[in-house]
Formats: sequence, C-alpha cells, structure tokens
Amino acid sequence: MVESSEEKRKRLIGSAKEAVTAAYSTGEHSIAQAINAYNEIEKSKNLIHERLSEWYGLYFPELSAGESAYAAFVIEFGSEKKKLTKTDAERLFGEKASYVMHSLEDSMGREPSKEDYDALLSMAKAEVGLDELQRRIDMFLKDGVPKIMPNISYLIEYRIAAELLSRAGSLQRLASMPASTLQLLGAEKALFRHLRTGARSPKYGVLFKLNAVANAKREDKGRVARVYATKISIAARADAFSKRFIAKELKQALDKALSHAPKRPESAERMSS
Amino acid sequence: MVESSEEKRKRLIGSAKEAVTAAYSTGEHSIAQAINAYNEIEKSKNLIHERLSEWYGLYFPELSAGESAYAAFVIEFGSEKKKLTKTDAERLFGEKASYVMHSLEDSMGREPSKEDYDALLSMAKAEVGLDELQRRIDMFLKDGVPKIMPNISYLIEYRIAAELLSRAGSLQRLASMPASTLQLLGAEKALFRHLRTGARSPKYGVLFKLNAVANAKREDKGRVARVYATKISIAARADAFSKRFIAKELKQALDKALSHAPKRPESAERMSS
Repeated sequence: MVESSEEKRKRLIGSAKEAVTAAYSTGEHSIAQAINAYNEIEKSKNLIHERLSEWYGLYFPELSAGESAYAAFVIEFGSEKKKLTKTDAERLFGEKASYVMHSLEDSMGREPSKEDYDALLSMAKAEVGLDELQRRIDMFLKDGVPKIMPNISYLIEYRIAAELLSRAGSLQRLASMPASTLQLLGAEKALFRHLRTGARSPKYGVLFKLNAVANAKREDKGRVARVYATKISIAARADAFSKRFIAKELKQALDKALSHAPKRPESAERMSS
Repeated sequence: MVESSEEKRKRLIGSAKEAVTAAYSTGEHSIAQAINAYNEIEKSKNLIHERLSEWYGLYFPELSAGESAYAAFVIEFGSEKKKLTKTDAERLFGEKASYVMHSLEDSMGREPSKEDYDALLSMAKAEVGLDELQRRIDMFLKDGVPKIMPNISYLIEYRIAAELLSRAGSLQRLASMPASTLQLLGAEKALFRHLRTGARSPKYGVLFKLNAVANAKREDKGRVARVYATKISIAARADAFSKRFIAKELKQALDKALSHAPKRPESAERMSS
C-alpha cells in the first residue's frame, strides 16, 4: 500500500508532535517551573507585605514583628488593636509578646476606618494566601526534586538543585556542563561584566546559596564552591545518564575535600611569607 | 499650681503624640497607600500570571487567552482539558471560544500529573485572589478619592488623582506646587537625567496616563499635559484650602483650552513654511 503525500504529511506531523509531547513529559520541566514560581512568589509576597506594613503603619506605627505574625495581627486585631490580650500576643509574637504589648499601650496610631480596615484585611489575607501557595510549591519541590535528581539532592538542598536545573535548562544540559560552568550558573551577569570590563571574575552564582559557601571565610568561598561544583557535576551525570545512585560515596568525597584542602594553600602562604 | 518638669515633659509628649495622630487621621494617607498597593498588586499579579502561563504552557502550549480567562480555565479544566465543552468555552473565552476549541483538538500537551495540577491550581487561585484584592482596593480608591479631592477627581480619573497625591506626599504639598512641577510629578528620573546629561527634558510623568495625553498627537502631548497640570493645580488648591467645589467651571475651561489652543501653533507653522 503506497502512502499518499497527504498521509505522509499527517504521519510526520503526528510523530513530531509525539516527540514534543514525550520531551515535555519528564518531570524536570515542572521542577524548573516550580522553582521559578517559588522565587517569584517570594518577591510578590515581599511586595504585598511592604505595602501592608506601610499602610497599617499609619495605624500602629510601633508594631514590629515578623512577616506572618504581622499579617496575622492585622487579620485578627487590625480593626481594634487594643483588644489584643497577653495570651493572644504570646500566641502571635512568642518572645516579643511583652514588647508588642508595651508598644500597644503607647501607640500613637488611631484605629483605621471601616473602609481602610477592609482593604487592609484583604491585603493581609492575600499575603497569607501567597505564603500558603509558596509552601505548597515548596512541598512539590521537596517531593519532586529527589525523584528527578536523587544524586544531586543527596549532596545539596533540593531548592538549590532545582535552581541549577532551571538555569541549565534541562538535566541533560546540566550533566553535560564542565564543573567550572556549573559553578558559575546564575552568575552570568557578573561573568559578562568581568569579560567586558575586567571587573573581578565571579566565583559562584546559585551555589552562593549553599550554607557551606555562605558561611565559609571570605578567602575560602571560591574553593568551597569549586569543590561542590565538581561533585554536583558528577552527580548530575549519574542522574541524567547512568541513573545509578552514587551519592553516598560522593558525599564522603565531598566532605573529605572540604575538610582537607584548605590547609594546603594556607601553609603554602605561610611558607612563602 | 506649678507644673513639675516631669509633668511638663509628659504633657508635651502627649500633645506631640496627639498632633501626630491628628496629622495621620485625614484619609489622604490611606489614599496614597492604596494607590501604591494597587500598583504593586498589579506587578505581583503579572509575575504570578507569567509563572502560571509558562508552567501550564507545558501542558497546553496552544492556549492563548486573557489573564483571567486563562486562570479560570486552569482552575476548571487544568486537570483534564479535553473536558471543555463548547458552552464552557463560550462562557470562559467569549469570541475566542472556537479558536480555543480548535487548539484543544490539536494540542501537543499531555495532562499534568496530580502533583503538577495541585500546584498549578494553587497558583491560578492565587492569581484570582490577587485580582479580587486589586478590585477591592480599586473600590476603596473610587469611593475615597472624590471625598478627599472632589475637584481634582472631577477633572481626571480617580486613580491618576491618587497617584499625584501619593507622589506629592500630601494634598497640601500637591496644592502648593507650581503647575510645572505638578506636570512633571513621576518624571523625576527623566528630569534629573535631563539636568545631568542634557538629555531631552520630560514633558509629563504621571499625567501620561491621562487618555487625553496618551491619545494626543506626538507634538501635542506636552501642551495637553501642561493644560491639564494648570487646571489640576487650581483644583488642588480648592481641595486643600478653600474646600469649594469649582470643578464644573474648571472642566469647561479645560475643555476650552484643549479645543482651542492647538490651532494656533499649527497655523503659525503653516504660515512660516
């Protein structure tokens, strides 16, 4: 049976569509979307919180509290702040309860009008809603990242793993990168500035979010980021290609490299001085 | 009875606090907060929508619809898009219904996993929530602005009036500004660039949002903004100081100035050429 050109066209389009569908059927695209969403929701939440605290600041300028405690206070006591009891304050503000009770006594703020309070209430609720959304997306990540990247997420926090994936574009691309490129993922701007103007070259991008990098001494940060990048790069290849779980050995090697290496350059410096 | 220094201190602090409370008791501070909130919520909404449409785009890349229709679709049909009937499509997408039905038949997207859909659903709901919040704040403005600025809001849209107020800092400061300063409110960056580098001087800031300015011919925009600034400035003084309602006369004068003035420079140009 000879295929007509119309049939052939349909068959080819059909198989191209299937290929596209298949390519997007792995969970990694959702992970990349989720971490971007997580970060954007963080920004949105901050924007709304800033507006809420500035506006409600007209009515209780002395209130100082963490973001969710602040929003919860506006929802419960925003229309009549003096109703706050010691018990409520402890529930909402924990250790800072007596400090808040004290600010309340002395507050220069009057109460908001009915209309103001309605608007403030909606804003506080929107902030709480965004917070819940963010937590839900975080659960999605916490659950999904180890499935897609069992090795990488054994070595580093799942959110940082997701961000590396998102910036690389796909797990395969992440796995095909030299460790030095992986180390600078997320530092593209600084890298181009370096190439263009000769400004200092960046030492890390996304990896700066690792506690081990953030907490390292200034002169060690670059080295710690490099050690991580090397091991993550190996883990990425296992996650993308061999699908073997080698992360326990990698973690040991990582810890060893982190604990041993720093002494060498230090003593070298000491000798040369 | 002689007042002790401690009593005097308390009395003075007390009256200072009362003065602060009184100063913040006029509705104009709430208006300024509300318009800032309105604008920030717009940004947040756009951020969330971008994330939503990019993520759900993995599953229905062909869907093209307005923001709220898109979010509503994800909420109702995001877990199984083929369930969309012609009637639902017409309800959600109006004129674009048959276009959406057609994209649906040909869609390359598979369905999201349960976990993906849960996250997408939360995002779509958050977007709808922000939309409701924004509408509520808009109602607050629509209701409150004419009370605080009856004259200005007779001449221009209440949101633009609120933004002028917010940028000026207070109604009194808005009313004390020369019309030329009012004309450039919101164009501070461009103004300083002009002063620093000699770049073209700005012709309007917030007032660009007026339909009359946006729709004016390029060479007329500056003049239209100036005419508006002059009348708004008079209206602001009435709102802040005399509290008289003079906006009807002002509106007539405004319309007259807008309809008459443009002919002069045009005919002058024609004569000179």
